[in-house]
Amino acid sequence: MKEMPAIECEKLVLSMELMGRRISITAKEIDLESAKRMITDILKANNIFLMGAGRSGLVAKAFAMRLMQLGFSVFVVGESTTPAVREDDVVIAISGSGETRSISDLGRIAKEIGSCLVTVTSNSDSTLGKLSDTVMIIPGRNRNDMGGYLERHMRGEYTQLSPLGTSFEVASLVFLDAMIAEMISITGASEADLKSRHTILE
Amino acid sequence: MKEMPAIECEKLVLSMELMGRRISITAKEIDLESAKRMITDILKANNIFLMGAGRSGLVAKAFAMRLMQLGFSVFVVGESTTPAVREDDVVIAISGSGETRSISDLGRIAKEIGSCLVTVTSNSDSTLGKLSDTVMIIPGRNRNDMGGYLERHMRGEYTQLSPLGTSFEVASLVFLDAMIAEMISITGASEADLKSRHTILE
Amino acid sequence: MKEMPAIECEKLVLSMELMGRRISITAKEIDLESAKRMITDILKANNIFLMGAGRSGLVAKAFAMRLMQLGFSVFVVGESTTPAVREDDVVIAISGSGETRSISDLGRIAKEIGSCLVTVTSNSDSTLGKLSDTVMIIPGRNRNDMGGYLERHMRGEYTQLSPLGTSFEVASLVFLDAMIAEMISITGASEADLKSRHTILE
Amino acid sequence: MKEMPAIECEKLVLSMELMGRRISITAKEIDLESAKRMITDILKANNIFLMGAGRSGLVAKAFAMRLMQLGFSVFVVGESTTPAVREDDVVIAISGSGETRSISDLGRIAKEIGSCLVTVTSNSDSTLGKLSDTVMIIPGRNRNDMGGYLERHMRGEYTQLSPLGTSFEVASLVFLDAMIAEMISITGASEADLKSRHTILE
Repeated sequence: MKEMPAIECEKLVLSMELMGRRISITAKEIDLESAKRMITDILKANNIFLMGAGRSGLVAKAFAMRLMQLGFSVFVVGESTTPAVREDDVVIAISGSGETRSISDLGRIAKEIGSCLVTVTSNSDSTLGKLSDTVMIIPGRNRNDMGGYLERHMRGEYTQLSPLGTSFEVASLVFLDAMIAEMISITGASEADLKSRHTILE
Repeated sequence: MKEMPAIECEKLVLSMELMGRRISITAKEIDLESAKRMITDILKANNIFLMGAGRSGLVAKAFAMRLMQLGFSVFVVGESTTPAVREDDVVIAISGSGETRSISDLGRIAKEIGSCLVTVTSNSDSTLGKLSDTVMIIPGRNRNDMGGYLERHMRGEYTQLSPLGTSFEVASLVFLDAMIAEMISITGASEADLKSRHTILE
Repeated sequence: MKEMPAIECEKLVLSMELMGRRISITAKEIDLESAKRMITDILKANNIFLMGAGRSGLVAKAFAMRLMQLGFSVFVVGESTTPAVREDDVVIAISGSGETRSISDLGRIAKEIGSCLVTVTSNSDSTLGKLSDTVMIIPGRNRNDMGGYLERHMRGEYTQLSPLGTSFEVASLVFLDAMIAEMISITGASEADLKSRHTILE
Repeated sequence: MKEMPAIECEKLVLSMELMGRRISITAKEIDLESAKRMITDILKANNIFLMGAGRSGLVAKAFAMRLMQLGFSVFVVGESTTPAVREDDVVIAISGSGETRSISDLGRIAKEIGSCLVTVTSNSDSTLGKLSDTVMIIPGRNRNDMGGYLERHMRGEYTQLSPLGTSFEVASLVFLDAMIAEMISITGASEADLKSRHTILE
């Protein structure tokens, strides 16, 4: 058995507080005009396709599950029964950098077909951002907008409290779940409606 | 083209604020003794197995990716190259209700083999909770602990702002990411270390 | 660098010959009445659900892809956007033993809902076999029906030439692809029709 | 209830016979020198990575499962815990055309890293074929080598009996399973050894 270090959980608490704060700030600063365009793109589409790589791909799947439960015709790129994309479909890419090679390649194909491309990203100036009909900005980690908070509380590096794409991934998930709340309101769906479509065989 | 409803995005903002608040509260109330036990279970294990159904399964995968980047030997139940579980392994289940049938069946098998079982759940009194060596409680949505906030701000139902398991799923993801922050601190890993193990072929 | 053994590839060739023979025998012995019932179950269904564990799960996905390309509404159990099963759906299980715990549990749930259950298996007398409306027998490896072939050619054990479920898995895949050929003929689809639905974003 | 057409299952039997014949022919014509090189590439590698799109991706996973059961350190590109590829690893691509865009992009990255690239394909003259250290040719459907058989037996089109990549996919799976048989012989593994590593949590 390996020797166990003393565990204080100071970083654990700090990291959660930081993320709570990050989400509260994002709630205030989110661009509602882009969000409205994104909802319109979804409501207008015949089929909805979600795509992302790595942890952003998991966020894409989590959103796709709720859209299915809301009654939309929705598919995840790379799953077995995902059909061909067509002109009247919307393709939604999740990519913090907007530069993930495989995803931007697929974005280009989607545009060539003539479908609507939406990208959820931290970087509007990216390859995917420039290709897209609608760009939804979700900021990644950002030392500046943490104000005095980080200075007062941080012992250790921000990069260690929220490594790599963590901030973007969590904030995107929360944003997309909030899009579901908005669409529940628009469509008049109840929780029971969602539950009735929830997979039984799991 | 379908007729588009007026979109106000009031619910969108409210839902994000609610989740920011939920995470901040969870950061304060999380049981650090259980978290320390869970970290110890992970550090002691030979191999780590993650499992969950639906959106909880996606949270399990997101945690597994970061553990791999930290250099652990980690597998997701159901993926192609996941080997047999053994006595000196830890199996981590993610289940809000603690009652997901397929996951609790697998939890029982893990215990029969003699491996360590950890469950991240809202419900310690559940089938999985009772089976587990370590139970890590992550509260789901909870009207009460929102205090005056919900009364002042809510127009519409809480269940529509955070439907089904949404609160548990997001709070679990943030908690598990915070566990990574703590383990980065314990192991002295840098963000560059994580990046060096990040998959290149994606 | 590890030292390399001499490689003769005798077993490689023998194993392929054995499988070619296994498939030719299965083509002759397959029960066409069950196959017709299975096609009828599929054509009558509103939605088609495929399920299987491990390599049988991969066979299930391969069949699901072709059914999608043929224009059917088809889902794989466990994928992100798979909805709830209903009474007028068919659930198709792939399980050599017919005893895979998670799959037989799901088969029981499917029957409780009132949907049609089809099992592709080597074992009609199994839990899944007994539960099912239609049982489609695909024999696994079978020393006897290889006749003099094995005696003349085998050096080494049959179990090593076709380990575990290999014979069943390959024969099932070939059988299900042949079902697609039959349904192409029934529906009058062309290869171009399949190609037009083949995923573009891959 | 939809009206049911008369089902004769003539195409079903013909398609299976065709595939049995295809596999028997492939067993005779397979290039054993390439197969030996591929086995050597696998035995020399530190880690083995499998990749493929669509049904070829399923064949990649089926091979990866057996390699894991044989005790190799093996990963599927795109699964959650797949780490970074390194110089002393082998990357195995499955692609009938050898031109699948996402897979050939990944093949190029693998070569830039300096790892060994093996491609299983029908087309040695393809992008992937030209990039690869070892090219393993598995012929796709081929009207000519069916000899008098097709003329005597075919009613209907070959493309409908074995649509799109079906012939390549099945023949690749059988070939890779036969590689496992050869490696069982080389490593002296028994079926019990494979079973002991077979996933228990499924």
